[in-house]
Amino acid sequence: AVLGARKMEDYGRFLALLGSALLVGFVSVVFSLVWVFHYREGLSWDGSPREFNWHPVLIITGFVFIQGIAIIVYRLPWTWKCSKLLMKFIHAGLNTIAMILAIVSMVAVFEFHNARNIPNMYSLHSWIGLTAVIFYSLQLILGFAVFLLPFAPVPLRAALMPIHVYSGLTIFATVIATALMGITEKLIFSLKNPAYSASPPEATFVNCLGLLLVIFGALILWMASRSHWKRPPEENAKVLRPIGGTPEGTEAESTMTDGSNADKSDLRINSEAARKQNLKLDEAGQRSTM
Amino acid sequence: AVLGARKMEDYGRFLALLGSALLVGFVSVVFSLVWVFHYREGLSWDGSPREFNWHPVLIITGFVFIQGIAIIVYRLPWTWKCSKLLMKFIHAGLNTIAMILAIVSMVAVFEFHNARNIPNMYSLHSWIGLTAVIFYSLQLILGFAVFLLPFAPVPLRAALMPIHVYSGLTIFATVIATALMGITEKLIFSLKNPAYSASPPEATFVNCLGLLLVIFGALILWMASRSHWKRPPEENAKVLRPIGGTPEGTEAESTMTDGSNADKSDLRINSEAARKQNLKLDEAGQRSTM
Repeated sequence: AVLGARKMEDYGRFLALLGSALLVGFVSVVFSLVWVFHYREGLSWDGSPREFNWHPVLIITGFVFIQGIAIIVYRLPWTWKCSKLLMKFIHAGLNTIAMILAIVSMVAVFEFHNARNIPNMYSLHSWIGLTAVIFYSLQLILGFAVFLLPFAPVPLRAALMPIHVYSGLTIFATVIATALMGITEKLIFSLKNPAYSASPPEATFVNCLGLLLVIFGALILWMASRSHWKRPPEENAKVLRPIGGTPEGTEAESTMTDGSNADKSDLRINSEAARKQNLKLDEAGQRSTM
Repeated sequence: AVLGARKMEDYGRFLALLGSALLVGFVSVVFSLVWVFHYREGLSWDGSPREFNWHPVLIITGFVFIQGIAIIVYRLPWTWKCSKLLMKFIHAGLNTIAMILAIVSMVAVFEFHNARNIPNMYSLHSWIGLTAVIFYSLQLILGFAVFLLPFAPVPLRAALMPIHVYSGLTIFATVIATALMGITEKLIFSLKNPAYSASPPEATFVNCLGLLLVIFGALILWMASRSHWKRPPEENAKVLRPIGGTPEGTEAESTMTDGSNADKSDLRINSEAARKQNLKLDEAGQRSTM
């Protein structure tokens, strides 16, 4: 009963953090919209500053908010009864959406620059931002090939998982750092009279947006790096294996440091019957922890 | 023998990463000096831009490089034979130096701004930078009170260690993000003819400095978050306890996620005799792993 109460308290703490992250992320997206509609020229796709404005909106929506949710999607306790394969598709799907939005948002800047004869790729923001998009795409392709497709051998999956987790979190932090550089650039370039240094309302408002992005990143990193909030390994998979499953992956959803977990088995169940039984067992397990 | 060879290989990998981090960190400091001496006005303390120039030099030297080394100082295998108390003093000492340099570097900017009637604290860089310095100072004071002074009870130490590690790494990442914003600001403000967008040599050079800071941060985060590179818990402490030690702390040097290690004992040995014996045992343990 004491253990149950403790787990309940821990579950409540997770929900509070998740709620905070969703709120801060959502408010960030709203702030980006208020920025471009209230303080700037709005949105359109015509080579004008209105096209540029898609850049902050899509980056904050996709590359920050959606990527952040994709990172912690395995942590949601009510998904632990879903099959691991389904969760992988959701994780990969959210990251794919984030990647597409990031690429579209880059196209918006290039078109705006070209329409105005502003050079491309001269700033530190652009160097690190493009690097982050390239690494993010490689991470997605490699993750798809190794962890979603059924071909990679178990030792390879186990060896790559800690690297996948580390790269994911490092890219996420780099994306937020790049967004902060972008906000700095944009405020300096667009605030002229009064200047950024005179702290007009837009400057204060967008500085607050920057702070929200840092808080969002800090919340996601905390949730992603608590080992006791990880999806539990599917122990019943071993029992079910004779029915129809093939052992497919050893994937600790190991967070940054937890190399020691890399040998926990996560065997995916292929046959429909086995999956249903698995689901029931998982549900039972779920109830016993709440 | 196989295990020995594996540990040897792992040790070599650690040394290679440490060498890379030291090299990248050192080159970053050199780049900051080349920036202010070759491309800018040099250094002095007279309210001129030469006083401002202390800001990037001291931040990169102290708040990035020294802080980074302070983070991984427990990871150095040849320090595992030193007492834990000594290593804590080195960790706290390096962080204190970093904090002092960060504060001096902020004073340089405030004095420069005041001499030129430039407003203070208007930019996102200044907001997040000041927040980082405040959190860093709190982290240092709290760390000193809880982990160095002998008063905090064991369960409090165990409960705070994962938070200490998480805050430390998050502050470190935030400091690097803030440095990137600072580089962006300074290049936009100081490059006028040719402008930043015309990519003069200074722009390209300082962009490379920004990339080096990201690489340095990524290397430190990787080293800090591998659980198998952690200082091993001092198991012999228990044996020695009757001789003269008092149990003082339960501190897993738990990295970001490794909450599971939080109950490993780290008992500090107070009597000199016990410390010497401890040292011998540690040395023996050290030899057996290499």
